[in-house]
Amino acid sequence: MNGREDEILAAAARIFREKGYHGASIRDIADSVGLLKGSLYHYIRSKEELLARLFDGALEGTVRELETIAAREATPSDRLREMVKTYVRAVTANLDAVGLYLREWRALPAPELARLRARRRAMRALFEDVIGEGMRKREFASADAKISALAILGMCNWLFEWYRPRGRLRPEALADELADRAVRSVSR
Amino acid sequence: MNGREDEILAAAARIFREKGYHGASIRDIADSVGLLKGSLYHYIRSKEELLARLFDGALEGTVRELETIAAREATPSDRLREMVKTYVRAVTANLDAVGLYLREWRALPAPELARLRARRRAMRALFEDVIGEGMRKREFASADAKISALAILGMCNWLFEWYRPRGRLRPEALADELADRAVRSVSR
Repeated sequence: MNGREDEILAAAARIFREKGYHGASIRDIADSVGLLKGSLYHYIRSKEELLARLFDGALEGTVRELETIAAREATPSDRLREMVKTYVRAVTANLDAVGLYLREWRALPAPELARLRARRRAMRALFEDVIGEGMRKREFASADAKISALAILGMCNWLFEWYRPRGRLRPEALADELADRAVRSVSR
Repeated sequence: MNGREDEILAAAARIFREKGYHGASIRDIADSVGLLKGSLYHYIRSKEELLARLFDGALEGTVRELETIAAREATPSDRLREMVKTYVRAVTANLDAVGLYLREWRALPAPELARLRARRRAMRALFEDVIGEGMRKREFASADAKISALAILGMCNWLFEWYRPRGRLRPEALADELADRAVRSVSR
């Protein structure tokens, strides 16, 4: 991705946040980076594509971090704890994009949607693998690893409905709290 | 609520499910109950109001069931387990309404939205109270009861994104699995 595209994505994120996704126009985004609307279409095809790219950018970095943690030499409990913390930090740092994605994914162009879904599946598989390993090592209670992963991700994703960044709860404290509950939820 | 209104609500639920909320028209609903569109407006003001009433109906019954369980003579663990099962059954039985509500609540008329939010708060408070009691009795680990309740509700609400009623997983088995994880998530 080149510098101009990064600049357009940053502007889109800011304008979606300020005006709301439905209230924001391609024109607003073009104006804010000093391009004519027609020239902006050289970089992106639609508002939906911008949303998909924003969400994909956030997800990509998070998946890489999770992969690193999952591959560490540590107990499944310790790795799961760190993975949940990382994931909660990512959700709280990208609340707007997460909320938008969850409401609007039906409107995304098919190729973008397919890519995002593959990434989300890969991410869920990382959680499932660590949980499955913990079950085999009898560190975690024997149960369905996929449901366990979905339950934990649900616990974290649901933040987009209730977490208020300006509230009393700091993201780091929240990450600790949810990681603790997540590890307990699968422990023996 | 009288019989005609029940009939209209049942028709709306069916048509929203068949055509999708945005694809369904007031006309479709009027046709299916044998009313002229103008006459239907005698019973309901808008499609948004129908959505709010459908969700409210599902929520009302669930809150009553949860109140009964919360008031039982049983340990906090046992009550929490039953409450989560009841809640999971309600979510899986009303997946369409839950998904629609979560995507569309921003479009609901203010009075309906206020009523639904009050009901959701009351429901969360039931979970929070039982969890808080379990913490005071040292049956649960000491932590923030509100975050614990939100984590458990998130685990269950997230079903609307992944649970497929025609899949291998029966609602009753899912209710058991999630109730087990929920109780573990707060236990010492």
